[in-house]
Amino acid sequence: MRENQHVFICSDAVGETAEAVVRAAMRQFAFTSGKLKRYGHIKHEDEVSAIVEEAARCNGVIAYTLVQPELHGMMREEALRKGVRAVDVLGPMMQAFVDTFDDTPKRLPGLNQTLDAEYFRKIEAMEFAVHYDDGKDIRGLMLADVVLIGVSRTSKTPLCIYLAHKGVRATNLPLVPEMRVPDELMKRRSGLIVGLTMDPDKLLSIRSERLNAMGLPQGSRYASRERIEQELAFASGIMHEIGCEVIDVTNKAIEETVGIILSRFPAERERRRVT
Amino acid sequence: MRENQHVFICSDAVGETAEAVVRAAMRQFAFTSGKLKRYGHIKHEDEVSAIVEEAARCNGVIAYTLVQPELHGMMREEALRKGVRAVDVLGPMMQAFVDTFDDTPKRLPGLNQTLDAEYFRKIEAMEFAVHYDDGKDIRGLMLADVVLIGVSRTSKTPLCIYLAHKGVRATNLPLVPEMRVPDELMKRRSGLIVGLTMDPDKLLSIRSERLNAMGLPQGSRYASRERIEQELAFASGIMHEIGCEVIDVTNKAIEETVGIILSRFPAERERRRVT
Repeated sequence: MRENQHVFICSDAVGETAEAVVRAAMRQFAFTSGKLKRYGHIKHEDEVSAIVEEAARCNGVIAYTLVQPELHGMMREEALRKGVRAVDVLGPMMQAFVDTFDDTPKRLPGLNQTLDAEYFRKIEAMEFAVHYDDGKDIRGLMLADVVLIGVSRTSKTPLCIYLAHKGVRATNLPLVPEMRVPDELMKRRSGLIVGLTMDPDKLLSIRSERLNAMGLPQGSRYASRERIEQELAFASGIMHEIGCEVIDVTNKAIEETVGIILSRFPAERERRRVT
Repeated sequence: MRENQHVFICSDAVGETAEAVVRAAMRQFAFTSGKLKRYGHIKHEDEVSAIVEEAARCNGVIAYTLVQPELHGMMREEALRKGVRAVDVLGPMMQAFVDTFDDTPKRLPGLNQTLDAEYFRKIEAMEFAVHYDDGKDIRGLMLADVVLIGVSRTSKTPLCIYLAHKGVRATNLPLVPEMRVPDELMKRRSGLIVGLTMDPDKLLSIRSERLNAMGLPQGSRYASRERIEQELAFASGIMHEIGCEVIDVTNKAIEETVGIILSRFPAERERRRVT
């Protein structure tokens, strides 16, 4: 995709779902400097028509999530009339539910952003992750659904944030040979503890970059092979003592590791999350 | 959707995009206790065939993002053969790009989770948001792309986390009448400052719930109408003095407010984010 290639997102809600699909699809093409333009909270048919007009002028593509029948119909008609490719991101999925489950959709915009119990659980989980990050307050070790343990730079913080997005209260504790592991961790009776580990060479390069980014000189113990191996051995010992599952996060994207962690929750909890 | 209604997600990567579409579509139906089952990292055609078989047995629906042609073809054939509705979440979008932009997709799985510059910018932004949250370290006020200011419980922290997901380094500063606003805020020469405000009644109910959740007695000043009005007036004065934009977040989902904030970034930055 090139400079002059435009993708329009058109939604009667926020447009997050359509944007997720557009970005994932874009990734399948060569490096893109294409322009993405998002129109949310569409209310009137003439707004739809104006967006199709704009897309037609610059030979762009449209991705839309319009659940209101008039707006949806207008998009189909106008796109056809003006020869613009417009992809219905939600429609086929909704139709599959209608056909298979014999249910009727509400066709109300913004339901994905409903301020319901699930939404507030997510927000609360985010505040939890921020508040208890990095073992700052060890009470978090008792309160969390999942505790991640590992040496510095094994992606503990972003993992907790991503887990919060799934409604899971996650906290993390850095493992450092010089620091005693709090009793609170050992005393956890319920919930999950997950150890994170990483290839020492990879960790070395991440820590070196980290020093660079912070404008600190290289050659510190923090980013030495010897120290890293010592830390990893210590961490591995603790994980073994606890008997927790250990995930090797080398070359794993956060989303992948989150997927593994979520799959370890009891099925009952998983079901509750889904509803 | 009911207890016995099953939705399968099938991906040769993580399955995040398909899950986003499934969840958005589910929201359009009556309260669901349906079961969602995600199969990621699919590598072989017989795995596809087994998933279709499982879906057929329980009369389920499949949402898939399979970019590898053999797996994609297998899904289409098997779903048709076994009479299972299977929705191709990415295919139509990719096809629209092919047809409009005359480009060829890579058809490699996992590109959405590529550990590239954008990915690391997101991770770094998340760590930034956590580290500088709540004015804990005022250097954040100089380093952030956007600073959110507002009284307690105006969703500053989750907004910063969501902005981090968009690769934006965001921090926040609580406004409290008894606390001096740091010079660092006033001295910001570049980047955005956004004020958050809320209807006092709504804020009152949120703060009361907060006290409840923390097991604290009601009737404190924190959750009194008088105090809230005093705080909001103080905050409004500061925002006026700075001359920043003010967003009323009453009844706005985080995603909506994030959309407004992002739309205030210069177009150049927006473009960079998209690529």
